[in-house]
Amino acid sequence: MSMIDDEIILERVSAWGQTIKGFRHEHAIEAIQGGKLILQGLRGKGGDWAHMPARCSTQDAAFAFVAEMALLFWLDDCYDLALLADDELALAVAVLTGREHAAPAHLKGCEVIRQTLAEYAASAAEYQNLLEHTAAYAHALATERERSADNCSYSEYLENGIASIGYHNVLGCLSLLWGLGMPEQMRSTAFRATLRRVCIIGRLQNDLHTAAEECVGPLVANAASVVARMTSAFPVAFVEQELAGHGRLLDRHLATQPLDETWQPLVTILRSIRESYYEKSVQRYRRSSQDA
Amino acid sequence: MSMIDDEIILERVSAWGQTIKGFRHEHAIEAIQGGKLILQGLRGKGGDWAHMPARCSTQDAAFAFVAEMALLFWLDDCYDLALLADDELALAVAVLTGREHAAPAHLKGCEVIRQTLAEYAASAAEYQNLLEHTAAYAHALATERERSADNCSYSEYLENGIASIGYHNVLGCLSLLWGLGMPEQMRSTAFRATLRRVCIIGRLQNDLHTAAEECVGPLVANAASVVARMTSAFPVAFVEQELAGHGRLLDRHLATQPLDETWQPLVTILRSIRESYYEKSVQRYRRSSQDA
Repeated sequence: MSMIDDEIILERVSAWGQTIKGFRHEHAIEAIQGGKLILQGLRGKGGDWAHMPARCSTQDAAFAFVAEMALLFWLDDCYDLALLADDELALAVAVLTGREHAAPAHLKGCEVIRQTLAEYAASAAEYQNLLEHTAAYAHALATERERSADNCSYSEYLENGIASIGYHNVLGCLSLLWGLGMPEQMRSTAFRATLRRVCIIGRLQNDLHTAAEECVGPLVANAASVVARMTSAFPVAFVEQELAGHGRLLDRHLATQPLDETWQPLVTILRSIRESYYEKSVQRYRRSSQDA
Repeated sequence: MSMIDDEIILERVSAWGQTIKGFRHEHAIEAIQGGKLILQGLRGKGGDWAHMPARCSTQDAAFAFVAEMALLFWLDDCYDLALLADDELALAVAVLTGREHAAPAHLKGCEVIRQTLAEYAASAAEYQNLLEHTAAYAHALATERERSADNCSYSEYLENGIASIGYHNVLGCLSLLWGLGMPEQMRSTAFRATLRRVCIIGRLQNDLHTAAEECVGPLVANAASVVARMTSAFPVAFVEQELAGHGRLLDRHLATQPLDETWQPLVTILRSIRESYYEKSVQRYRRSSQDA
């Protein structure tokens, strides 16, 4: 990442995060770790940048991208850990989805990141695309929280997990900054099918990691716990098989419906996130054992 | 079914079936029972026919539809029970998918039903649509047979089960005879999503029935056995939950993407097939206990 200075990005994201209630340093740390991984997908075979940001410097784009990823972690915790009062959360979501434009001082960072991304967006359609995926992400997180006490089937859990994993936002933000044309891609049935499969794979990878770490006490929203509730077992093996199976289904889909050279590397990175990201995550996904 | 005489249809289907090796009377019996159920979807609120066949009499259309359904049962048994030698099966599939046009004497019925449906088809596109779904059905049955010894994940099993349940053929044949426009409908993403969900629901209903009857010895291709292999349990409860969950997902989908008045009754019938069909099935799905 020759053109991105990690320390500078981390400092900017941390300063920005101080204007958001409940924002933690670990959100920024995890975001820069995950963000750098994804940004590799924008580099060509020689390792140089195959794309450049549409409307800002690479440094500014990297800041905005990492800040948005940190925001996704923070929003997830807002639902899981109740960092905000309900009306504060509703307002934050309204700002992040473009329904409100002004935020109070303790949520000012939400307003700032949306203004920044609107300014940096390659097109109005790219910005609209990000807002829509943010709405779907927040809705899925809310559904997960509501459901935790209820019954829900494995397939309903997975359907919701496609949005709650946040990959649409990650790719949407990249697309907005580097002008990758996600709004046009989303009109293709084949592309949506690919993304759907990649998100399921991401969801299962995340859940297997969380189940293995046993880091959040009772696993309220986890594929393994959803299945366990019905089979009186702890079927990590089932979820492992599911993950392998979705991988094969994705391979088969891509064999006949290949992605273009912009999107293929991004999908490859997202698929390998278990090995390249979760294995290295020492902050977010091992929190409770450290906190305990 | 005032305009359809069951006895006459059964006689015609049985006579036709005598020209197909391995065809059993139960294939015709099950087909007329299931077929009459589906045909209710073509009747309006007053119970009268809301649609009429495009190119033949109602009696002829009913014969062709029931024969095609019997053919689906027979083809399923060809793969499950090895009624034909491999080269015979390959030839039958080639005729049924339009790749070959002539069949030998012991498979003549395959040729006849395709000629009949080509003649009765509301349009060339409707006939082509049926051939394509037949190819997908045969491919899914072959995949199920090949996999039975192997490992496959629940999601891969379900993905294949969408085609192996045969609902695309059932609806495709109805559409061909009564001119319901399935080829146009299939161009709609929303319609395909609905059909996909309906097929999953059908697959799970079928598998739960088969699991409950324990009628085919070891359950080689069954959602419950696929899950059981991984969790060392017999998780009918899991599959029951999955069925309920897919039903809720379908409801949610239809709430925003309703079907038109032609397709809604057909989907309603397919969804209720567990209560209205399997519960009454005394032939096909209780075979082994009778044969034993």
